[in-house]
Amino acid sequence: MRIVPAEEFDLKRESDYGTPEQNEAVKEIVRNVRREGDAALLRYTEQFDNTKLTASGLRVQHSELMAAYDEVEESFVTAIRSAAERIRSYHQKQKRSSWMDVQPDGSILGQIIRPLQRVGVYVPGGKAAYPSSVLMNVIPAQVAGVPEIVMVTPPATGGTEGINPYILVAAAEAGVTEIYRVGGAQAIAALAYGTASIAPVDKICGPGNIYVALAKREVYGAVNIDSIAGPSEIVVLADDSAEAAYAAADLLSQAEHDEMASAVLVTTSPALAKAVSAEVERQLELLPRRDIARASVDSYGAAIVARSMDEAISIVNKLAPEHLEIMTEDPMGILGRIENAGAIFLGPYSSEPVGDYFAGPNHIIPTNGTARFSSPVDLDDFIKKSSMIYYSKEALLRDGETIMELARREGLEGHARAIEIRLEQESQTGGNSK
Amino acid sequence: MRIVPAEEFDLKRESDYGTPEQNEAVKEIVRNVRREGDAALLRYTEQFDNTKLTASGLRVQHSELMAAYDEVEESFVTAIRSAAERIRSYHQKQKRSSWMDVQPDGSILGQIIRPLQRVGVYVPGGKAAYPSSVLMNVIPAQVAGVPEIVMVTPPATGGTEGINPYILVAAAEAGVTEIYRVGGAQAIAALAYGTASIAPVDKICGPGNIYVALAKREVYGAVNIDSIAGPSEIVVLADDSAEAAYAAADLLSQAEHDEMASAVLVTTSPALAKAVSAEVERQLELLPRRDIARASVDSYGAAIVARSMDEAISIVNKLAPEHLEIMTEDPMGILGRIENAGAIFLGPYSSEPVGDYFAGPNHIIPTNGTARFSSPVDLDDFIKKSSMIYYSKEALLRDGETIMELARREGLEGHARAIEIRLEQESQTGGNSK
Repeated sequence: MRIVPAEEFDLKRESDYGTPEQNEAVKEIVRNVRREGDAALLRYTEQFDNTKLTASGLRVQHSELMAAYDEVEESFVTAIRSAAERIRSYHQKQKRSSWMDVQPDGSILGQIIRPLQRVGVYVPGGKAAYPSSVLMNVIPAQVAGVPEIVMVTPPATGGTEGINPYILVAAAEAGVTEIYRVGGAQAIAALAYGTASIAPVDKICGPGNIYVALAKREVYGAVNIDSIAGPSEIVVLADDSAEAAYAAADLLSQAEHDEMASAVLVTTSPALAKAVSAEVERQLELLPRRDIARASVDSYGAAIVARSMDEAISIVNKLAPEHLEIMTEDPMGILGRIENAGAIFLGPYSSEPVGDYFAGPNHIIPTNGTARFSSPVDLDDFIKKSSMIYYSKEALLRDGETIMELARREGLEGHARAIEIRLEQESQTGGNSK
Repeated sequence: MRIVPAEEFDLKRESDYGTPEQNEAVKEIVRNVRREGDAALLRYTEQFDNTKLTASGLRVQHSELMAAYDEVEESFVTAIRSAAERIRSYHQKQKRSSWMDVQPDGSILGQIIRPLQRVGVYVPGGKAAYPSSVLMNVIPAQVAGVPEIVMVTPPATGGTEGINPYILVAAAEAGVTEIYRVGGAQAIAALAYGTASIAPVDKICGPGNIYVALAKREVYGAVNIDSIAGPSEIVVLADDSAEAAYAAADLLSQAEHDEMASAVLVTTSPALAKAVSAEVERQLELLPRRDIARASVDSYGAAIVARSMDEAISIVNKLAPEHLEIMTEDPMGILGRIENAGAIFLGPYSSEPVGDYFAGPNHIIPTNGTARFSSPVDLDDFIKKSSMIYYSKEALLRDGETIMELARREGLEGHARAIEIRLEQESQTGGNSK
């Protein structure tokens, strides 16, 4: 891994908005599903997933879900259950209540907080299945109280209708209420606009390939969508107290995700930079996914040597990484100075995979520097809020003139008159009495 | 206003994504401001706002702000101050704290909640100035603790550099920290990417014309943006206890905004539908903005007669209106059955303008049916959250195997090894001791 002085480092970031052809293809798929419903879904499933289904075969049956439990190891069920329990427990701490403010004049103001009614979660198909992502997308919705949580995932290619049993078990444990075997842009269109078989949702979450991402962009507005994730990132901020082998292993756990993943060490210690760099080389060669990790480390990895902890912290804040590990003598002393980071891991035992799978906080975290203004997925992503205004007669009589002054200043006489007509009528019918 | 039976009503909704030419123009402006900075800003300000500025003239001086107070009526300052105080007080009730969960094994999980660092607020120029929108955009940011709140607004056309003094006073009262006289897509580009004179922000809020809206879409990702508002909407849900004249006045206060605004009565009472419809006609003719209100009422207005309160409520939930007034005998009894509405006004004295200007809740509210999944502007729009994970050695030794099982199941051996290397090393250097 290359070692660079702080002043020479600039993080490469890439965004993928698709080619014009991909954009056009997605628009057409969405248009057709919107127009033709199930018929289009089935046609695209045959075309893209080599699977011939009937409309009644779209929905995964309860018996298939139960059968999935027989196909997976018991140790997996136990593991996913403990993870689900911890994730649920963390997200439960974010619960918020509707509130109201009862005022002395009899007015009541408030905010009503309610779960979304129906949420769709996309789960990619293909060889690699990520049950942990199912937990991280579904559990916050379920804890928020969303009554209908719909999962869509493509059928396994090659003519079988099957869905990865680990995904099915994770879905059942997380609290998914309906599952459909459909993927790609066509699944997103079905969730957004509905078909005879799939009722439309309020929000669509979950990762997918470029077609899925473009389709989410395309339907945004008709439904809400989560943010579209870029390649994964880790920054390890370390001083010379850090264990080089741990730092290297954690950097590699990020680099193995994706050739475009970024793993960066920021340190005040030139010796540590050297040691971590050497450890990265050593451990990298032993990884099954070494080709991916190598590409990531070579293109996006670096060990940055800062001249002071102040400079190191300011680099971290500029990078605004998705994951930040602080491996310094006193990590809590640095925490308060971190302005921008999606998830912050403190101390030698808080390895990033602890958070990816198990600790409780969500692993869906803003990438690409957007931690500057975005947040990890949490309950707030699955609620909606309504303001409530009950104004008393006393309050209206007191404030009416002021409201009319402001409305007239903006040239909105109709607004003023909506107040005026009440002031006039109420003074005719008994004046200031309540 | 036309009276329609429930089963025949369907709300027209329109979205404006601009023409291809407008989109291209905006892309070019953003590109040029990004590349040339202030030079492009000044050029576009001369071209679009007929105002020749120098870079040092972009920023509005403190003395100009003070002078604005001399240009407005004292009654306006008093009114805007009371409104600001109420809005501030309501938003303060939304304050949330960072929290942590200290676990028996010594681990600490938490969520750190912090304000955004720098926010940009767009304020449209033109003849109509809306000081109330300045309050509604700026106060939540200020209460959330955002230290830098930047306002941009175009200079008055016709060669003067002046800015509407009502806007300036509202900005000062709301807590804006910097003001620049620049508007249009060029202002949005400057806020997103920064120029020598204007430092970039984390989020851009505020309404604007189609060029501003397209520019916000264009820069989204580099910065966050608020949602893009559609035409304003009101639904009045009423039974025969409602005062027809009040309902009509409130419907018209919405209709006068915009020819595309929508004002709809939903009632169980055919007699009230008739009375409100007649009152709308009568009051409409007296309004200064009667042409706009007429166009809105004719195209988007209706009095819908439902066969039961259940049906009426279900229509409201389907419409998911920006503003909902409930004028029934027992409005609180209906509140809990309203699933989708941005702001809910209860009883005869809670006229919508009370909320537009004064009561406290925000008047920036989801339009176009998006109350199904979006919320009025509040403090949540101006914060970012970071997850915090401090895992103890004890916890890692306990959970390490489970985490490795989950990582290996997903084929991410590098993740497993980041845990394994710690388990091995810690057992060599003293096993289970903390």
